[in-house]
Amino acid sequence: MDAKPPYYAVIFSSRLADDTGYHEAADAMLALGSAQPGFLGFESARGQDGHGITVSYWASLEAIAAWRAQAEHRAAQREGRARFYERFQVHIARVERAYSFEASPT
Amino acid sequence: MDAKPPYYAVIFSSRLADDTGYHEAADAMLALGSAQPGFLGFESARGQDGHGITVSYWASLEAIAAWRAQAEHRAAQREGRARFYERFQVHIARVERAYSFEASPT
Repeated sequence: MDAKPPYYAVIFSSRLADDTGYHEAADAMLALGSAQPGFLGFESARGQDGHGITVSYWASLEAIAAWRAQAEHRAAQREGRARFYERFQVHIARVERAYSFEASPT
Repeated sequence: MDAKPPYYAVIFSSRLADDTGYHEAADAMLALGSAQPGFLGFESARGQDGHGITVSYWASLEAIAAWRAQAEHRAAQREGRARFYERFQVHIARVERAYSFEASPT
C-alpha cells in the first residue's frame, strides 16, 4: 500500500457459523468497499478452522463511518449477524507507522 | 480482550516461503511475547495459500518497542527474514474503538 501514515485500519476478526453463500457475499462487499471514497486497501486471511481476519485501510474516520452507513453494506451487516458469523470483533485503529520486507530472489 | 481503548495493535501480514519449522518457531515466539510486559492479547489466521495475518495488542508503544528489541525475538526476526517469509508488512496502530458481536445460541 502506498499511503503514508497516519491513516486508519479496521481490523475485523470473525468466526464463521455457516459459510454457505459467504464468499460471494464477501466478494460483493469487497467490490463495493473498494469503490468507497477514502478506501486505501485491504488484506484478508482465513484458516481452515473458520477463523478469519480482514483488515481494511482508510484515509480517515469519516471514510470508515460513511462505509459503515452505506445502504447495501448495512444490509450485508444484518445478514452477517443473522447468518454467517458465530462471532466477530472489530478494532478501529490509527496507523502510526508501517514498514515491509521482501525477500531477495534466490 | 478486556482492555479499554486506547491501546496499540501490531498488524503483521505475511506470506510464507518455507513453513518447515515455522509453526514451532511461531508458537515459541507467541509464548515469549505473551509473557512480555504490556502484552494484551493476539489473534491469527493463515489461509492455505500461505498468506497470514497476526494481530497482537499492546498497552503502549514502549511495550511494543521493548518486545521488538527482546534478544530471542531479534534472533527469530532474523530467522524469519532469512528463511520463513517471502514477504511481510507491519502496521503499528493506535486502537481508538473496539466492539464485538456474539450470536445467540440457537
